[in-house]
Amino acid sequence: MKVFFSGSIRGGRELLSVYQYLCTFIVSEGHEVLSEHVVDPQLEDIESSMTEQEIFTRDMDLLGHSACLIAEVTIPSIGVGYEVCSAVQRNMPVLCLYRSGSHVSSMILGNRNVVVQGYSIREELDSIVLGFLASLQVKYRDNS
Amino acid sequence: MKVFFSGSIRGGRELLSVYQYLCTFIVSEGHEVLSEHVVDPQLEDIESSMTEQEIFTRDMDLLGHSACLIAEVTIPSIGVGYEVCSAVQRNMPVLCLYRSGSHVSSMILGNRNVVVQGYSIREELDSIVLGFLASLQVKYRDNS
Repeated sequence: MKVFFSGSIRGGRELLSVYQYLCTFIVSEGHEVLSEHVVDPQLEDIESSMTEQEIFTRDMDLLGHSACLIAEVTIPSIGVGYEVCSAVQRNMPVLCLYRSGSHVSSMILGNRNVVVQGYSIREELDSIVLGFLASLQVKYRDNS
Repeated sequence: MKVFFSGSIRGGRELLSVYQYLCTFIVSEGHEVLSEHVVDPQLEDIESSMTEQEIFTRDMDLLGHSACLIAEVTIPSIGVGYEVCSAVQRNMPVLCLYRSGSHVSSMILGNRNVVVQGYSIREELDSIVLGFLASLQVKYRDNS
């Protein structure tokens, strides 16, 4: 399955290692992360040679080619909020993950169009992500 | 004109005085800010008695009753990103304001569906907001 992964870039990179862990796990389960640039430590250098419009268009195009969106929403980020809303508008399944105890927006916590899960230790992410992706595969199988 | 004002809540309240300045200015020009709760210093106390779904539904309802959205996007915020995208999806005019030099998301800077303006001193906000609102009034007059 093609997955769009969303995490903070200009909002702050403190959780980059969690983003990397998540993307590696998703790929190890046989899926493809179309937005792998999000977990590149050199991303800001690479994007400095692109225009803002090129970055926007790349991300919206990749979202349009993805089957679902998985977002880490712990760090406040306008881009992540924008991408979650874009995925909801496209009727894509959305999973939002956050560190338990963080101040997550009501636009995520109160949103019936997204699956929201808190986690305390990194290892919990495996079962949450597996459960989400498995539920989609069941849905696709039942619909086909 | 009914205006939805969007600013960071759980992402951080450091620019609350700027949000208050903006809303007071918009109202002083004869418009109505439907989301005035965003600039209430006691907002988090008030919202603590509401469910996350109630907050989400209130904000989306108010957005649906607004003619345009004005967002202060300096502080990273998932809610602000979500609301800007929701307004774009509804074909609403959107103005995004940011302090010059801040790291604004490409989902804002590279987005042809929103008007984006940096400012250095607070007084610049008056002319930016006035220009945006006047352009909408001209558009509405020409279409009526």
